[in-house]
Amino acid sequence: MTTLNQEYPFHIRLHDTDAAGVLFFAHLLRQAHDAYETFMESAGLDLPRLLRQGPHLPLVHTEADYLAPLRHGDRGRIRLSLAKLGKSSFTLAYAWRREDGTLCARALSVHVAMDPASGRSIPLPPELSAALDKLPAAD
Amino acid sequence: MTTLNQEYPFHIRLHDTDAAGVLFFAHLLRQAHDAYETFMESAGLDLPRLLRQGPHLPLVHTEADYLAPLRHGDRGRIRLSLAKLGKSSFTLAYAWRREDGTLCARALSVHVAMDPASGRSIPLPPELSAALDKLPAAD
Amino acid sequence: MTTLNQEYPFHIRLHDTDAAGVLFFAHLLRQAHDAYETFMESAGLDLPRLLRQGPHLPLVHTEADYLAPLRHGDRGRIRLSLAKLGKSSFTLAYAWRREDGTLCARALSVHVAMDPASGRSIPLPPELSAALDKLPAAD
Amino acid sequence: MTTLNQEYPFHIRLHDTDAAGVLFFAHLLRQAHDAYETFMESAGLDLPRLLRQGPHLPLVHTEADYLAPLRHGDRGRIRLSLAKLGKSSFTLAYAWRREDGTLCARALSVHVAMDPASGRSIPLPPELSAALDKLPAAD
Repeated sequence: MTTLNQEYPFHIRLHDTDAAGVLFFAHLLRQAHDAYETFMESAGLDLPRLLRQGPHLPLVHTEADYLAPLRHGDRGRIRLSLAKLGKSSFTLAYAWRREDGTLCARALSVHVAMDPASGRSIPLPPELSAALDKLPAAD
Repeated sequence: MTTLNQEYPFHIRLHDTDAAGVLFFAHLLRQAHDAYETFMESAGLDLPRLLRQGPHLPLVHTEADYLAPLRHGDRGRIRLSLAKLGKSSFTLAYAWRREDGTLCARALSVHVAMDPASGRSIPLPPELSAALDKLPAAD
Repeated sequence: MTTLNQEYPFHIRLHDTDAAGVLFFAHLLRQAHDAYETFMESAGLDLPRLLRQGPHLPLVHTEADYLAPLRHGDRGRIRLSLAKLGKSSFTLAYAWRREDGTLCARALSVHVAMDPASGRSIPLPPELSAALDKLPAAD
Repeated sequence: MTTLNQEYPFHIRLHDTDAAGVLFFAHLLRQAHDAYETFMESAGLDLPRLLRQGPHLPLVHTEADYLAPLRHGDRGRIRLSLAKLGKSSFTLAYAWRREDGTLCARALSVHVAMDPASGRSIPLPPELSAALDKLPAAD
């Protein structure tokens, strides 16, 4: 059995920062999506294939909390958890913890399974629901 | 008296999109920040100067709703409104409306006034509160 | 007759900068592409349609020179010119001049007309060659 | 003795791509800089510290060649080599090779050592020249 990627390393690069010397806030969500893609791939549901064959899983809502500054060179891990699992949608939670243990940021992403042909929401594929169900529950 | 920039044009560029053929979700927040910078400048509070002299106005929370796909070439306007005005923080609301009238996305950004030296929250500068107070109220 | 957009305004936003306090170099090329898209649209060759119907005009080479720092809040204009016009390819030159007259950066982009079905290079559409021919020659 | 990071993995993420279904060209240079930051760190010259203490190593020129499309999900390695080592400047070469062996892209970055106080070019720090000298020579 494959191991699910529930954690994803982060390393704040120069391009992640702005003239205020810290992470530009929107780039946090780019990092969240990298963690999500890696999780999906570890669940055998790689996004490049889903984009070709469907279902699509577009984001319909996202949130982020910025708790402590992330600076150039900072490293740590993004930890995924499951905030909600519905019939045709799911909510992932992400937590950025720096190597020194500080919780720096949190985010949520809400995805809906959609038939690319009709644009209508459809039930989540069973293998996706099963993979999501193995994630730890969000606090 | 100066006019406040409460609207900001958007035009979805190739770099805004991804292989799914629509806006990559995190880029919506980059656009929101462009609209915010333009509003602030129109209020005489340009961010480059605030970053040098303080106060800083870091984002502590952000949210976005994706209501209809934004595709390469789509144009329209981002409309700013005031969701909340506190003593040392404020919440801006953003709405993306395509030229055909479709409301495509909404976002919120919560900012806190911070003394860059101490890292502590401080009251909003009066000229900022006054400018925010002239924005239409968010729905 | 339509006017070709040979100039494009730039305004360095917070997300364009990095912790060194200046433009992150790769973002210059994003700005160049915005100027290119606007030129193409003014020539009646909007990229979203070309991406659907062909020909595609993929970049095969790009260059940039960074001459003076571009800082948060800097404004000016990107001026397009034609460096080379071939049978199935063309080279655009871009120059970033700040409002104070300083030439801050230059870039080149080389594009090849490609049939999306075969992946083969094809002659430039005549209306594109004609539009390119109206651009001033690069120094 | 530490090992220098002369190779850096790449994995094309959704945010790297655009509506044409391939890498948006400017993002290649972001990836090059990630590889450069990792090399520098492995040489004991981490960029966050250099940005605080100097010398700065601003990019003055960059080039890229796009040889084969990089698509969402593609993986491989970026290989660094030394194209030129001067007294106060150096040129790095980067090559993107997909897992199937295809050379997909090449880039160059020219950096100059600069005293942040005076803005003048200065000799490269000896430990940097030594590290660069251990890189394989570019073709």
